[in-house]
Amino acid sequence: MKPIGPVNALYPMPTTLVGALVNGRPNFLAVAHVGILNHGTPQYLSIGLHKSHYSNAGIHANRTFSICLPDESLLVETDYCGIMTGKKTDKAALFDVFYGELETAPMIRECPVNMEMKLHDVLDFETHDIFVGVLVQTFAADEVHREGVIDIARLKPLLFDMASKQYWALGTALGQCWGAGKALKRRAAPQET
Amino acid sequence: MKPIGPVNALYPMPTTLVGALVNGRPNFLAVAHVGILNHGTPQYLSIGLHKSHYSNAGIHANRTFSICLPDESLLVETDYCGIMTGKKTDKAALFDVFYGELETAPMIRECPVNMEMKLHDVLDFETHDIFVGVLVQTFAADEVHREGVIDIARLKPLLFDMASKQYWALGTALGQCWGAGKALKRRAAPQET
Repeated sequence: MKPIGPVNALYPMPTTLVGALVNGRPNFLAVAHVGILNHGTPQYLSIGLHKSHYSNAGIHANRTFSICLPDESLLVETDYCGIMTGKKTDKAALFDVFYGELETAPMIRECPVNMEMKLHDVLDFETHDIFVGVLVQTFAADEVHREGVIDIARLKPLLFDMASKQYWALGTALGQCWGAGKALKRRAAPQET
Repeated sequence: MKPIGPVNALYPMPTTLVGALVNGRPNFLAVAHVGILNHGTPQYLSIGLHKSHYSNAGIHANRTFSICLPDESLLVETDYCGIMTGKKTDKAALFDVFYGELETAPMIRECPVNMEMKLHDVLDFETHDIFVGVLVQTFAADEVHREGVIDIARLKPLLFDMASKQYWALGTALGQCWGAGKALKRRAAPQET
């Protein structure tokens, strides 16, 4: 256990396609520097975008954006949206684009899940805009949810790791949250059993 | 593709053990509502903690915390740290605890990677404190990195999904970031090849 310098190891993260309306046209950007801020209603999520990106102005202007979740089958399209800039390329032409109630947050019908976000706040970091959004509506393909509960094994999210510069698949379920630890609780305090 | 209500589907997220010194003693809390805010130096990361948690006061007081990354082998201990409260339980007794240069951010020798964080800001949400930290130092076991580049396949992170209430393993590498999309670039613009 040695110090290796301030290396960010908080990976993998879900790879997303962030949608914004920029100069009146939909654009999509690959973003994996995302965050879940709280747990509840309203639900706040964050995306961190370098200020050089084309989409930032559109999010500032419309105060809306989307977080679309591509699955494994969209790896090439997703990566393409991470390589190309909307300044020069119509990336939305790759997809069947649709809109929800916010009307200015473009989403992708090919993505199994899309989240429509209203801008809540912007954290102005030196090189990045951190857009904090409120989740307004989620759109999901029938195949990946049952009564609104997402089945992540069917979703097949595309995970991102910076160190390997690879997309990764989700593996197998390992154990129950708020359950597996009870064994240790019993061991630590046998009088409670 | 139908609306299912504002369901947060931004999973899986890395499961972490957040360390804090509370009332002079180390405490660890399971946290998967985390975020990567920017990419660069300084590197900012966020953790979202419900205000009812025992650790929040310690992070406010010392302005330091740690983000420790348990691997699959620590599933039971990690879940235990998510079930039990530091108010009543000495969860640090489970681990070989060490400190880095900040001196008040307890870390776990059994975790293959530990990140030492200095508090940068707190976003005061109604029910949650969102602690934004600056990454000061990363400690990694020899087995999971080569010259400071983490090997995520060896790290075997414990991923969290809220819908299934399960911990999940990382799967296989699927393709190259900033590489796989080039095929589409060539297809879209064959004159460039």
